[in-house]
Amino acid sequence: MKYLNLIPVPNQELAKEISGAMKGAESLGTTLDMAVVDYGPASIEGEYDEALASAAILDTCAKAGQYDGVFINCFGDPGVRAAREFLGVPVFGGFEPPILLALGLADKIGVVTVLKHVVPMIKGNIKKAGWEDRVPSVRVVNIPVLDLDKADSLIDAIAEEAKNAIEQDGVEAIVLGCTGMAGATDKVHAYLSDAGYDVPVVDPTLAAVKLLEVYGALGLKPSRLTYMPIREKERK
Amino acid sequence: MKYLNLIPVPNQELAKEISGAMKGAESLGTTLDMAVVDYGPASIEGEYDEALASAAILDTCAKAGQYDGVFINCFGDPGVRAAREFLGVPVFGGFEPPILLALGLADKIGVVTVLKHVVPMIKGNIKKAGWEDRVPSVRVVNIPVLDLDKADSLIDAIAEEAKNAIEQDGVEAIVLGCTGMAGATDKVHAYLSDAGYDVPVVDPTLAAVKLLEVYGALGLKPSRLTYMPIREKERK
Amino acid sequence: MKYLNLIPVPNQELAKEISGAMKGAESLGTTLDMAVVDYGPASIEGEYDEALASAAILDTCAKAGQYDGVFINCFGDPGVRAAREFLGVPVFGGFEPPILLALGLADKIGVVTVLKHVVPMIKGNIKKAGWEDRVPSVRVVNIPVLDLDKADSLIDAIAEEAKNAIEQDGVEAIVLGCTGMAGATDKVHAYLSDAGYDVPVVDPTLAAVKLLEVYGALGLKPSRLTYMPIREKERK
Amino acid sequence: MKYLNLIPVPNQELAKEISGAMKGAESLGTTLDMAVVDYGPASIEGEYDEALASAAILDTCAKAGQYDGVFINCFGDPGVRAAREFLGVPVFGGFEPPILLALGLADKIGVVTVLKHVVPMIKGNIKKAGWEDRVPSVRVVNIPVLDLDKADSLIDAIAEEAKNAIEQDGVEAIVLGCTGMAGATDKVHAYLSDAGYDVPVVDPTLAAVKLLEVYGALGLKPSRLTYMPIREKERK
Amino acid sequence: MKYLNLIPVPNQELAKEISGAMKGAESLGTTLDMAVVDYGPASIEGEYDEALASAAILDTCAKAGQYDGVFINCFGDPGVRAAREFLGVPVFGGFEPPILLALGLADKIGVVTVLKHVVPMIKGNIKKAGWEDRVPSVRVVNIPVLDLDKADSLIDAIAEEAKNAIEQDGVEAIVLGCTGMAGATDKVHAYLSDAGYDVPVVDPTLAAVKLLEVYGALGLKPSRLTYMPIREKERK
Amino acid sequence: MKYLNLIPVPNQELAKEISGAMKGAESLGTTLDMAVVDYGPASIEGEYDEALASAAILDTCAKAGQYDGVFINCFGDPGVRAAREFLGVPVFGGFEPPILLALGLADKIGVVTVLKHVVPMIKGNIKKAGWEDRVPSVRVVNIPVLDLDKADSLIDAIAEEAKNAIEQDGVEAIVLGCTGMAGATDKVHAYLSDAGYDVPVVDPTLAAVKLLEVYGALGLKPSRLTYMPIREKERK
Repeated sequence: MKYLNLIPVPNQELAKEISGAMKGAESLGTTLDMAVVDYGPASIEGEYDEALASAAILDTCAKAGQYDGVFINCFGDPGVRAAREFLGVPVFGGFEPPILLALGLADKIGVVTVLKHVVPMIKGNIKKAGWEDRVPSVRVVNIPVLDLDKADSLIDAIAEEAKNAIEQDGVEAIVLGCTGMAGATDKVHAYLSDAGYDVPVVDPTLAAVKLLEVYGALGLKPSRLTYMPIREKERK
Repeated sequence: MKYLNLIPVPNQELAKEISGAMKGAESLGTTLDMAVVDYGPASIEGEYDEALASAAILDTCAKAGQYDGVFINCFGDPGVRAAREFLGVPVFGGFEPPILLALGLADKIGVVTVLKHVVPMIKGNIKKAGWEDRVPSVRVVNIPVLDLDKADSLIDAIAEEAKNAIEQDGVEAIVLGCTGMAGATDKVHAYLSDAGYDVPVVDPTLAAVKLLEVYGALGLKPSRLTYMPIREKERK
Repeated sequence: MKYLNLIPVPNQELAKEISGAMKGAESLGTTLDMAVVDYGPASIEGEYDEALASAAILDTCAKAGQYDGVFINCFGDPGVRAAREFLGVPVFGGFEPPILLALGLADKIGVVTVLKHVVPMIKGNIKKAGWEDRVPSVRVVNIPVLDLDKADSLIDAIAEEAKNAIEQDGVEAIVLGCTGMAGATDKVHAYLSDAGYDVPVVDPTLAAVKLLEVYGALGLKPSRLTYMPIREKERK
Repeated sequence: MKYLNLIPVPNQELAKEISGAMKGAESLGTTLDMAVVDYGPASIEGEYDEALASAAILDTCAKAGQYDGVFINCFGDPGVRAAREFLGVPVFGGFEPPILLALGLADKIGVVTVLKHVVPMIKGNIKKAGWEDRVPSVRVVNIPVLDLDKADSLIDAIAEEAKNAIEQDGVEAIVLGCTGMAGATDKVHAYLSDAGYDVPVVDPTLAAVKLLEVYGALGLKPSRLTYMPIREKERK
Repeated sequence: MKYLNLIPVPNQELAKEISGAMKGAESLGTTLDMAVVDYGPASIEGEYDEALASAAILDTCAKAGQYDGVFINCFGDPGVRAAREFLGVPVFGGFEPPILLALGLADKIGVVTVLKHVVPMIKGNIKKAGWEDRVPSVRVVNIPVLDLDKADSLIDAIAEEAKNAIEQDGVEAIVLGCTGMAGATDKVHAYLSDAGYDVPVVDPTLAAVKLLEVYGALGLKPSRLTYMPIREKERK
Repeated sequence: MKYLNLIPVPNQELAKEISGAMKGAESLGTTLDMAVVDYGPASIEGEYDEALASAAILDTCAKAGQYDGVFINCFGDPGVRAAREFLGVPVFGGFEPPILLALGLADKIGVVTVLKHVVPMIKGNIKKAGWEDRVPSVRVVNIPVLDLDKADSLIDAIAEEAKNAIEQDGVEAIVLGCTGMAGATDKVHAYLSDAGYDVPVVDPTLAAVKLLEVYGALGLKPSRLTYMPIREKERK
């Protein structure tokens, strides 16, 4: 099966970094190509950025050719539902997959993400999915997306907010709320275990690749009643 | 006060028609300018069209200059939350205003809109707003947006689905689910009254203009905790 | 259009004060008459007072003559639904209008009201409206209604509880939870802005008058399926 | 223990009838006195009637003397919460008790009541109690309260709507939605059993008396945090 | 009427103790027999124990002969729904009855139970019943079931957590969350009253016996649409 | 990785059949062993059967040795949560996995299962998971589990109920509600496509195996805060 890893910000370096972090995510027999959008905001931190990015994402989808599934590499799920309508194949952003996996492992789930600016967008996605009672907590480390790789104490910051989510918000599993946090799960898990909390920590990127592979293996595609094929019309 | 009526599809004729239908919506002392996007889909009928339209809408907002509020003339609310972040002034699409008015008039509200293609998008907006138990019904007349003005029997089609919503889904007020249905409220109301149902029928366009005027009169602006000011960064 | 400002407690002085505070709320062309009930509790602080007040409110409605809409000047919404059945015209208390306006400005709304005695009544109204996830917080300043005008530090008390609601309950907009708090919005807004929270503060009285005017302008009336006309029978 | 059966409409004949139907509801050792209000609507069929009745109910409570609990004999629960604040002893109307009993017997419960006029009031009570998913159906026999005793086919009408609720709304237990339907449970149960539906049919009056006795036996009283003692003030 | 008090752990001493604590719970005319399971876990503290206990409970039901109702003496409600299917008579564990009684006395209810191990099970039961907004708090005293009788400070521990639930979680009534806490209600109530909180404290055992008696008196049995009669088949 | 396919009914033939149908479900490198319980009901059709089966399932878990994950081969999820507590490794029944996969493909999901007897159990699991608005429909083909393989028209029966769920209940994806329906997905999908409904049809068995493999690949285990390790105690 052949999947597309679509980087929704026009940043070749970030793209390289991310795809490095994803190395090994795919199973034997899976091809995972990368495409980077040509324009749009440098990072997606709010609904303005998300709206700007969506058009570029759909352009890239149109140009990328045929894939068995697409991963839009952003926790905000920009353009995900639009791309399902357009392409008719499985499409995930970073939001749904780790939540879906966490739902099978714990009753209450907490998200730890970057900035307050993205919280209403994420909470909106939680509500739209009908998961507000299963995902009651969204916390931030207060580090912008583009500084994540420079932050000395990123792991500590994530782990501390995860601990706060467990102790103050009652969550029992952690989802990393930014695809730029790739690679942090093991260390965050170790930190929490040391603190007495043996809870799963789920990475959005790995979860997305694995779930796309499952859909591929089972031949499952998005419902055409939810994601109706787009109607022909002028779109200039 | 000075408001912008932003037509989110690149169609000058439709724009003229719509703004004709809105004549008189504004109160004394209100200026209502019109701006039409330069590019994007010819109509918004699904989440793909909505995503495409959003970038053009935000471009137009950026170029339009300073307004006391913006009405994005589409029931799908494309770019509404993004524009609130970007502009910091009241922004409405066609969805929220008529529902807000109907909530003060009835317990259960039904939307009658154009095509099945837009129903998941509208239901998503209902869920995101937390209104699913107050707005349990979304029905369609099965007429595309661009054919609404040519449809001989548009009023009948709307009125019949409104009647079905009352009788089968238990709704007690009707919201017209497309800004292209402007001007239909009185006739639909008369039809339903004749059928024994004295229920309010709310027009999205008029509702939006009136609520923007209220926000203007009371000096109310979007919360900067929900709609945080956009962060400076490269957006090419 | 001609509206009735119905003071639901038999207190002519309070009535004068309130109607002073409302001066200028109405638009050009709006007449806003005042009527004061003849009997009932001196203030409405709980469901016992609300039940006692309702009969007097409906009596006053019956005697007041024909209006295009009625504002029952109390945040507890006493007699509101009953008056809609009885009169068939738009009727608001102080509860619904500011919430409706706040719903268009923020995702999470907090109410700041007078005493713990009224909290279950307000929370009951929130639940009945299906708004519990949008309005998760009701806080009190612990000052009785009849002392509001004597309280030196009313503004501070409201602003502090508003700040607590933002910081501890996650709300992003504030609704003043008593019509006796009229005139406090600007100062509370300034206080919160100074504290770093640029959020709307909505006054129930102004919101109610403005929304009644909107209904008048658009010719909208309560649904007769939700608020059925009262049946003829002996009522002694 | 000594309980008050408070008839909330000024109708001595109806009172006699009802208290006849209740004969034997009380256990050994229980005294069940009756009091009839002096004024108010002849029957309670909507929120206008309910609001009018509440003041008379509270007057009667004040005059009735000390009881271990009060049953306000109406499914609309008029004045129930107010009387809990005022009296501090267990108070039930006809709504909560049969639902509470049915909740222990079935997952989904349907109410069969008199007229469409009372449905929004009952649905409002269901929502306020947070029971909308357990009590998804409220149906009407279309017979006014004061004609219930004259209706030849009352049992059939109730039983048919109960059957419709089972077959069309998926309910699994029936609550009679008017205290004037006292005495119908056995016949309705037999009808439904014959139709293949062995489901409980719960009478509001009997349920209320029995639950008041339970509270009496266990010494349980309303929470003074939900139903705070009324504040001293002028109430003329 | 004749009811069965079924002790779901194979512990004759505990059984004696518990049935001592229940002395006097039954009304005149009620027979309350006791049966103790032969095998299973020594106490039920989690879903593993609950699953193990269920088979023994159903065995004991099968052997016990005919009763008008059964009380399965555990707050976790092990085997309750299964026994309703099997027996067709009213069956309660310790969970539903005190919540049902508390629902008539307060808007928000808190459970105080033994160990963190049982909290997900109890919260699952709350969600399954649709009561999460009425029962928002489950707290623990951190004492295992089998140590409850040895704990010097059990009352204090319960009362303190009850106070925390009131002050921090906003509850207005307390349900004791283990049938092994029998006899604590009065002292906990006194402690809370002294702290200024006049709230009901409900005992699961007494609540269950009283509600079974009510069902017996009214001839009410579980719905056979919710709890369908078991199908004949081999069960070895 | 090594997983256990646990057949929860003591039926070696059924076990062979099922494991035949599962052939090929596992990926390269996955070992899928089978174990069959020694005792319990011949099929699981209701909460009585489920409770009886749970003890046998946990016995079999205890004897089976160490696995990386367990699939309890029944849509009712008997013993699933108990086994997670006991084993600490990923455990799925047939219920959660296909729903989780369907949640990424459609907004509204319908289950088609065997008999009315299992519907309350399945609906209870839906509620416990907080998925009632995403999974609004559970329909039955009215064929007992043990007759599924003999039913000539099983595919037609499933497909027709799936079509009813789409047309009458508004679902947009189908989950097969019994692991005994293995192998039906393609034919049901073809039938629905022919009827104009291009929707995913998800098989519980395949979904479970694939999701267990994902957890294995990512090293994810159940949260020990939701599924706490079982306490040491006598369990005879």
